[in-house]
Amino acid sequence: MKRFSAELLGRQLTAIFTAWGMPADHVDQTVRAMLYADLSGIDSHGISMMALYQQHRKAGKLVMAPKIDVVQDGPVTALIDGGGGLGHAPGTMAMNRAIEKCMQLGLAAVGVRNSNHFGAAGYYAKLAADRGVIGMATTSGWKESIVPTFGAKPMFPTNPIAFAVPAGHNRPFVLDMATSTAAIGKFTLARRHGRKVPKDWALAPGGKPSTDPQVGLDHRLLTPLGGTREMGSHKGYGLAAMVEILSTVLTGGSYSPTRRQRYGDAAPFNVGHFFMTIHPAAFRPKVEFAADMDHLIDALYGTPRADRRQPVLVAGDPEETARREGTKRGIPLPDDLVALLTDIAGDCRAENLLKPASRRRKA
Amino acid sequence: MKRFSAELLGRQLTAIFTAWGMPADHVDQTVRAMLYADLSGIDSHGISMMALYQQHRKAGKLVMAPKIDVVQDGPVTALIDGGGGLGHAPGTMAMNRAIEKCMQLGLAAVGVRNSNHFGAAGYYAKLAADRGVIGMATTSGWKESIVPTFGAKPMFPTNPIAFAVPAGHNRPFVLDMATSTAAIGKFTLARRHGRKVPKDWALAPGGKPSTDPQVGLDHRLLTPLGGTREMGSHKGYGLAAMVEILSTVLTGGSYSPTRRQRYGDAAPFNVGHFFMTIHPAAFRPKVEFAADMDHLIDALYGTPRADRRQPVLVAGDPEETARREGTKRGIPLPDDLVALLTDIAGDCRAENLLKPASRRRKA
Repeated sequence: MKRFSAELLGRQLTAIFTAWGMPADHVDQTVRAMLYADLSGIDSHGISMMALYQQHRKAGKLVMAPKIDVVQDGPVTALIDGGGGLGHAPGTMAMNRAIEKCMQLGLAAVGVRNSNHFGAAGYYAKLAADRGVIGMATTSGWKESIVPTFGAKPMFPTNPIAFAVPAGHNRPFVLDMATSTAAIGKFTLARRHGRKVPKDWALAPGGKPSTDPQVGLDHRLLTPLGGTREMGSHKGYGLAAMVEILSTVLTGGSYSPTRRQRYGDAAPFNVGHFFMTIHPAAFRPKVEFAADMDHLIDALYGTPRADRRQPVLVAGDPEETARREGTKRGIPLPDDLVALLTDIAGDCRAENLLKPASRRRKA
Repeated sequence: MKRFSAELLGRQLTAIFTAWGMPADHVDQTVRAMLYADLSGIDSHGISMMALYQQHRKAGKLVMAPKIDVVQDGPVTALIDGGGGLGHAPGTMAMNRAIEKCMQLGLAAVGVRNSNHFGAAGYYAKLAADRGVIGMATTSGWKESIVPTFGAKPMFPTNPIAFAVPAGHNRPFVLDMATSTAAIGKFTLARRHGRKVPKDWALAPGGKPSTDPQVGLDHRLLTPLGGTREMGSHKGYGLAAMVEILSTVLTGGSYSPTRRQRYGDAAPFNVGHFFMTIHPAAFRPKVEFAADMDHLIDALYGTPRADRRQPVLVAGDPEETARREGTKRGIPLPDDLVALLTDIAGDCRAENLLKPASRRRKA
């Protein structure tokens, strides 16, 4: 895979979004959030989403210059209408508002409705931690993939939840997790390598487990975290439901399984997000909080290992490692993704900055 | 198993706590929370805890008439010091305070430090839902039982998290889950029936999985929700850490693995809890929120089944079913638990209201 600097990829995305008619401030927020995902090794939520964004845009499911409105605003809560555009701009706006509010009263929550894909949930949670406060972010989706325990049909998107917490000498704790057992991207990877997937990642139609990654990809019958009832899948299912409640029921977003039924196929996805912030200083001196976070994190790193070659990690470590590597050596993009960006740029007459393809285009 | 009415058991517990020197208002709050657990079928968190409470009391680890102090109080946040007593009274006080505060500004969070076991987390979350707002509750513990992914030593208690959400025609959604794969009580049950436990519920010393329930009970090397890295145990581990952060790092409670190290064995457990409330009306009209909760819950009940005899449940259903049964027919108590209550009552010279044993005592 060829590597590209985040700076170059950022300019390429900027060129495309600008050509799509996205306002400059939205472009900036969208590109930042997307590059965070790719730099952090969360490839599935960054540049690779451009295929889908392009598809949604062409299908009239994405407003490129949305009117983002604050429809409700209180001392510690707010509700933002995303205007039917991508979620990165309203998401960033919402989290920033939650951060500002919690600087005043120690706690805040901001919801977003009428939005779309917003990238990696951890990005927004980390915005809070980088400002010294605890952040939480959840989002709904538009495509059901998680099957409730005892069910045979998916009833939730992979409904992620993210938390980020600032520490002292340690980097922030950043937990960013789908509430399904495995991410869709892992099925794609298994298929590419001709491997089976573990038995309880997904079901075949009818409700029996399947190890064929193609079955997982075709039918999207993913198990909730836990995998089976015996292993606690009712907990993963419960968490997926709670993420849905915060992201859509609370904000006025659409619950996907009833959206089509209630509003028809042409209705906007009306994805919802939920952001929360907690200021440690509302509870105890910040320096004590940071010291105790370090005690916790240091203790976790010191956990005796099951396998001496594999250290115990703390949430956010793999992403941090990827970020260091990506910042130094560039972000690796598979050839088909480079080709896709080239096509998309060509399609909207944006400048193609990824050279080899650019040469091809000029030829 | 003999069944006893909640009313009778409540009077028995009241007699014991009163004899232990607990103030009347604390007794009332403690008994309510405990009976909720037993009525809801969460046996492990109700009356069966009396053995441990008695043990902690005798070991000087429980203050029976604690001074419960509000040490920090803002418009939407507060911090309560439990004074070293049981957690039910400060927990109830904290959740009620969070409910009152969120009636004003739509959102609130209250922490508790210097506490102890508080029963079932779902009880507190449901206090909020019963008042029409979303509730969340977490707690730390004093005994490590969850092993981080890749680790060979437990680094977290079973760190539960609970959410409750009011609906319209449906009863509230109530999710109450430990962040371990399985509860300790399930190991006791397997041992009693001479059964093995599923492979990935617990590890043997060294870090390999063990199916022997006795190994799980002796060593408390429980896996985090997910069970294995492949099945997403890093998510369960991350959630356990997040519950610990909210319950202890934020409140000034003790993180168990470092407590002994930092403060010695004689130090109080300093258990911490965290409570949060969100008022739906801060985001959208309450009637719309309730209608959408019903759409969600009704859709979940309508999920096609994997096995037609087993309907898809919604978080809180098993507890609701147990509560109906328990209210009608009484709470079933195993003989050894009745004997224990009898002993405890005898020991503190409280009246014994559970007849057969009472007769024995009089003989």
